[in-house]
Amino acid sequence: MENIFTDEYFMRIALSEAKNAFDAGEIPVGAVVVVNNQIIAKTHNLTEMLNDVTAHAEMQAITASANNLGGKYLHNCTLYVTLEPCQMCAGALYWSQISKVVYGAADEKRGYVALGANLHPKTKVLRGVLENECAQLMLDFFKKRR
Amino acid sequence: MENIFTDEYFMRIALSEAKNAFDAGEIPVGAVVVVNNQIIAKTHNLTEMLNDVTAHAEMQAITASANNLGGKYLHNCTLYVTLEPCQMCAGALYWSQISKVVYGAADEKRGYVALGANLHPKTKVLRGVLENECAQLMLDFFKKRR
Repeated sequence: MENIFTDEYFMRIALSEAKNAFDAGEIPVGAVVVVNNQIIAKTHNLTEMLNDVTAHAEMQAITASANNLGGKYLHNCTLYVTLEPCQMCAGALYWSQISKVVYGAADEKRGYVALGANLHPKTKVLRGVLENECAQLMLDFFKKRR
Repeated sequence: MENIFTDEYFMRIALSEAKNAFDAGEIPVGAVVVVNNQIIAKTHNLTEMLNDVTAHAEMQAITASANNLGGKYLHNCTLYVTLEPCQMCAGALYWSQISKVVYGAADEKRGYVALGANLHPKTKVLRGVLENECAQLMLDFFKKRR
């Protein structure tokens, strides 16, 4: 039987969260956290609504996952996020010791790679899943705002 | 008239917050945010109590300050924190565009300097205020836990 629970499957759910952010006037980034093919957190960027620079999709996903699991370490968890994490989110992911991070579009200016920040050495990274769709949503957002 | 509102004055308040963390079994880091000599946030690390790796003193201080000010940018604000921020907190401070960061003890292993993370180019940094007292509290905490 075909496995429907591919990286694209979960990234598409993160992308639908990003579209919710878009519709709410937030920079369109969405995230889900998955354990054993089960989604334990589904979030999007809320920096405008909460008036809080720390309210990135990933930060909320980390907090929600820890609440859900009853422990602060995200071992055996995979984060799917539509945009490359910034250094704040990379730092939070570092502390969480999350097993895997999958992201869509690269952020060549403010992403953790360009800024020299680090994930945990145990964390596996997969880049570029649904990259074009994730990037296009960001482009559409900033075009609309100009 | 002598100015009582020195960097040491506010760092001592951050240090008393760090002691509250110590007493609660949390890694003893405390923070205050100050605007025009007025404290708008006073927080300490709550990662154990909240079971949340994102609950560092600085992260809560940033969120509380933004709530207090009614805006997400911390222009004209100074953060006093007893320990050098990690890359997550440096990343959050970057987004906040905070005017000044004053810290006590260096964190040579997990601090943002060692990890190559960046504060905002507009942010001034002052290191080493009450350094010995801030560092000693950390040493006492980890000695007690061994």
